[in-house]
Amino acid sequence: MKLVIGNKNYSSWSLRPWLLLRHAGIAFEEVALRLFTADFDIEIARYSPAGKVPTLIDGDVTVWDSLSISEYVAERFPEKQLWPADAAARATARSVCAEMHSGFGNLRSQMPMNITAKLAPGIGWNVAVQGDIDRIASIWTDLRARYGAKGPFLFGEFSVADAFYAPVVSRFATYGVRLPDAAQAYADFMLALPAMQEWTAGARAERDFVVADEPYRTQPDRPDAIIVTG
Amino acid sequence: MKLVIGNKNYSSWSLRPWLLLRHAGIAFEEVALRLFTADFDIEIARYSPAGKVPTLIDGDVTVWDSLSISEYVAERFPEKQLWPADAAARATARSVCAEMHSGFGNLRSQMPMNITAKLAPGIGWNVAVQGDIDRIASIWTDLRARYGAKGPFLFGEFSVADAFYAPVVSRFATYGVRLPDAAQAYADFMLALPAMQEWTAGARAERDFVVADEPYRTQPDRPDAIIVTG
Repeated sequence: MKLVIGNKNYSSWSLRPWLLLRHAGIAFEEVALRLFTADFDIEIARYSPAGKVPTLIDGDVTVWDSLSISEYVAERFPEKQLWPADAAARATARSVCAEMHSGFGNLRSQMPMNITAKLAPGIGWNVAVQGDIDRIASIWTDLRARYGAKGPFLFGEFSVADAFYAPVVSRFATYGVRLPDAAQAYADFMLALPAMQEWTAGARAERDFVVADEPYRTQPDRPDAIIVTG
Repeated sequence: MKLVIGNKNYSSWSLRPWLLLRHAGIAFEEVALRLFTADFDIEIARYSPAGKVPTLIDGDVTVWDSLSISEYVAERFPEKQLWPADAAARATARSVCAEMHSGFGNLRSQMPMNITAKLAPGIGWNVAVQGDIDRIASIWTDLRARYGAKGPFLFGEFSVADAFYAPVVSRFATYGVRLPDAAQAYADFMLALPAMQEWTAGARAERDFVVADEPYRTQPDRPDAIIVTG
């Protein structure tokens, strides 16, 4: 299996299936494309009919989009139990994933994922973003209260839901968002997860400073950065 | 089972699971809420933790969001075969549904679903919208070429994918969008589907003229309309 992803620093949609596969211990080859570069459109057209990352290639099967990849992988590797075994919990897990997949537009646009950046608390914030933050904190708090006895993940055991909320865990760290205790504990746990640390190290190794994803910085931190204007 | 939906004239997200259940012949009770009215927030809070339609209530299980409802229903009624049986076709079906679920933002914002309206071709159109239209036409054309021998739906037999693209079928009719022949034939077929006709009749019976969903009309057509300003 081959997973085509964008920059680890910026591509929140790519992080989801990558973390899912890596934490679950499913082997895959990584194809990393550089977002907004001249080559991106040409390269992605070789892999994805939708022209977007992430895309999974498994033999002659092509799956595009983070959610359909997750469903595909969950079906392909049933022994990994990537959705909760209980039908009601599974319905809730799919609901919170779908809610993330199509929603939280305020958070998404105002606090784009930017793993290596540390921005002053308050940057990107507005009342609508706070509404999104409150809803996410409420989801995490509620799930941890219900499933906490079964393990440290949202549904106790690791599931697609953790992979889907990993990008916002990173966003909250970047933008200095402080959460209620139970939600913050979950975020801290996820940030320390080995697969998350590995992705973060990959983000640190990248040199691209993608202007389209940097609404709050005019200058890269590292002197050897490559400015990508798209 | 109880399906909580919004106005049939405007709620594209509600149409998806409603059409899925109705065409598949799965019994459910319909709870219709009026979007943007004073009662909506109070009513929806009784059903959905995300505060949005559609929401499915099945005993003590609550499923919110059109995609998670579809997955839930497909699992709950396996004899209905709501996803293609072939694993590769199923991966493609989930990919096109997920692409619709999180994408086509230009089409969505510029051509909101408005079943009973007939607007002059050109209204709502711009180059970005055309990009979305082209991509959808290309998906339909490609799938019909691959699965046409098996039946009239996107994957031959009816699937979640048809339910997911039903709102754009309606949008194209409202905004007078003309598609390439194979794509147009699929759109015409879907418009004539009994379940789609039933939903459309429901939309015609509604009196609400929701200002937030009417960027291109200042006046309702019917004299007994209720202006909902939200």
